Amino acid sequence: MSTTNPLVEAFNQTAYPVIGHGKRNVSVLIEALEQIDPELDSDNYGSGEVIERFQAQIAQYLGKPSAVFFPSGTMAQQIALRIWCDRKGLKKVAYHPLSHLEIHEEQGLQELHQIESILLADKTRIIRLEDVVNLKEDVACVLLELPQREIGGQLPEYEELEAISSYCREKGIKLHLDGARLYETLPYYQKTAEEICSLFDSVYVSFYKGIGGIAGAMLAGDEEFTKESKVWKRRHGGDLISLYPYILSAEYYFNERKDKMGLYYEAAKELADFYRACRALEVRPQVPVSNMFHVHVPLPKSKLEPILISVYQDTEVGLTANLKENGEHACYYEVSLGDRYAKIPKAKLAQAMKLLDERTADVL
Amino acid sequence: MSTTNPLVEAFNQTAYPVIGHGKRNVSVLIEALEQIDPELDSDNYGSGEVIERFQAQIAQYLGKPSAVFFPSGTMAQQIALRIWCDRKGLKKVAYHPLSHLEIHEEQGLQELHQIESILLADKTRIIRLEDVVNLKEDVACVLLELPQREIGGQLPEYEELEAISSYCREKGIKLHLDGARLYETLPYYQKTAEEICSLFDSVYVSFYKGIGGIAGAMLAGDEEFTKESKVWKRRHGGDLISLYPYILSAEYYFNERKDKMGLYYEAAKELADFYRACRALEVRPQVPVSNMFHVHVPLPKSKLEPILISVYQDTEVGLTANLKENGEHACYYEVSLGDRYAKIPKAKLAQAMKLLDERTADVL
Repeated sequence: MSTTNPLVEAFNQTAYPVIGHGKRNVSVLIEALEQIDPELDSDNYGSGEVIERFQAQIAQYLGKPSAVFFPSGTMAQQIALRIWCDRKGLKKVAYHPLSHLEIHEEQGLQELHQIESILLADKTRIIRLEDVVNLKEDVACVLLELPQREIGGQLPEYEELEAISSYCREKGIKLHLDGARLYETLPYYQKTAEEICSLFDSVYVSFYKGIGGIAGAMLAGDEEFTKESKVWKRRHGGDLISLYPYILSAEYYFNERKDKMGLYYEAAKELADFYRACRALEVRPQVPVSNMFHVHVPLPKSKLEPILISVYQDTEVGLTANLKENGEHACYYEVSLGDRYAKIPKAKLAQAMKLLDERTADVL
Repeated sequence: MSTTNPLVEAFNQTAYPVIGHGKRNVSVLIEALEQIDPELDSDNYGSGEVIERFQAQIAQYLGKPSAVFFPSGTMAQQIALRIWCDRKGLKKVAYHPLSHLEIHEEQGLQELHQIESILLADKTRIIRLEDVVNLKEDVACVLLELPQREIGGQLPEYEELEAISSYCREKGIKLHLDGARLYETLPYYQKTAEEICSLFDSVYVSFYKGIGGIAGAMLAGDEEFTKESKVWKRRHGGDLISLYPYILSAEYYFNERKDKMGLYYEAAKELADFYRACRALEVRPQVPVSNMFHVHVPLPKSKLEPILISVYQDTEVGLTANLKENGEHACYYEVSLGDRYAKIPKAKLAQAMKLLDERTADVL
């Protein structure tokens, strides 16, 4: 049951891991509970102070009339799309080919809800207004993910978002926000969550990406929408007798980190500068628009892995624990920044990036 | 957001609440975490030591090759039935009219899986062999709940269970166990969980009824079955990045309470004796076969409620926090015993039951 991945092991042994907030271990929960009164009552199948208070806080933050806590975004988003499809009497939605629904959910939307998905744009770029305008058939809902994670966290310009929103309203198409990393877009857009969410009919946000909680999600919209979502939450098996371990930790880390997104964004831009100076490497997007980006390397995974391990061992800096293949001759990895970045001595980081540059440059 | 139910308030103020293990508050989680190493890694989308270790323990306890942890029984059971239906190419199952699937899940099985349910027996009694034999159409699976909660926790005799199991195997019908309260049946049957589960093809158990954990369930069966169940778990939105708050508390309270089911059973029999001595009250089943039973009262809820409150206030003993109507002129409540019962001075309890008898007897 122990990990046997040498890259993960080498990363876990570094003194200065670069990505994320910290280890995902039980201390995350223990810290969140430290200030909680042990006599605080559990929530009870979606009711009770502990869940209602946090739902009200997030509804207000997102500028929506109502919000419902879910164990997962997978559950929340399928349900949002199902409700909009039922309203329109049309089981078709449109989203990006690298949407979470398309690649990480075992086709739950199709298998459980019989909803057909139409893919917008392609795997290399974000959805544009013209993709929506050029839809050849009507759909009940368009889902936009901000930022589009699987292509390095790219974002449309705000004006284009507004144009997509106006177009969808005009055409009677609901617009749903996959806001798994919504907070992380605010520093780039220079908007409040409420302003961005006003462009959407329904919004999902997560509590374990930039927020760094344990798990859990919120689905927000109008009262009728969230009321219906609770019925589907029960059908899905997500209306647990107690969700408070997730709620209390989500609430704690939300309040802890929601105002730090600017720091993470600045960190991403700074680190991307380092990466762009590596001759063989490519950063996508070239200049980050959130706390994340991708590093593309023209080497097979099997060749990059020992180079990274040697850099970690020589500098104590851990750059990534997870490489993804991009065909046979290239690979890439995601860089997503949080609390850890500020703790790394800049000289250490510079040394690591210098070695990475030298050890990958000979492929050119 | 605060409770305004006077019966709940009066119950919560008693020094000696009779039912359950204790309050469902945050201390339940804190206690479970006290001995846990904060450095213990989170599970990660169904993998990792914390989840695999507990799944292995429960699989062994139930005598099944494999077990999968789920956030809820609602999710686990729909998925079990879906798998058996897909295997047989027949979307029909049979269960009791008061099954959890029929009355507490907003028709998730029908809405998400398009599975038709055929109801066996009636709302007053448990499923018998003849109900299964007399099925007018073939089904993929029969679900039995042991004990049948909504009728006070009734059980068939073990020989009848064996006969139902043999019949289903002969006819190619899968038998699924809703074992939400399976542990609680062991003292009556004088069998191991493994012996009982050997009669079933798949088994669901819960960790927050008799076990008193926070939430969570396990689904057990053969390797192929549980492997498939993980795909559906992801589709349902139950394959969370971290389930450890539920797993660690389930593990802790399972090990704490699994061998106390005999005490809870004896407590139920003793308390049922007290209740049977109340002239106006009826106990179902007359003699408990698990840690639970129902108390039926020939009074409308509105008349019983002030009587109960007066008993709580005069004796400091809390008998129930929740009455259910049974038509206009009668009501009933569930009694489910755990750790609290042993802490009540017998004289206090006797006094409470004497007052309850006196104050309800005048309806006769």
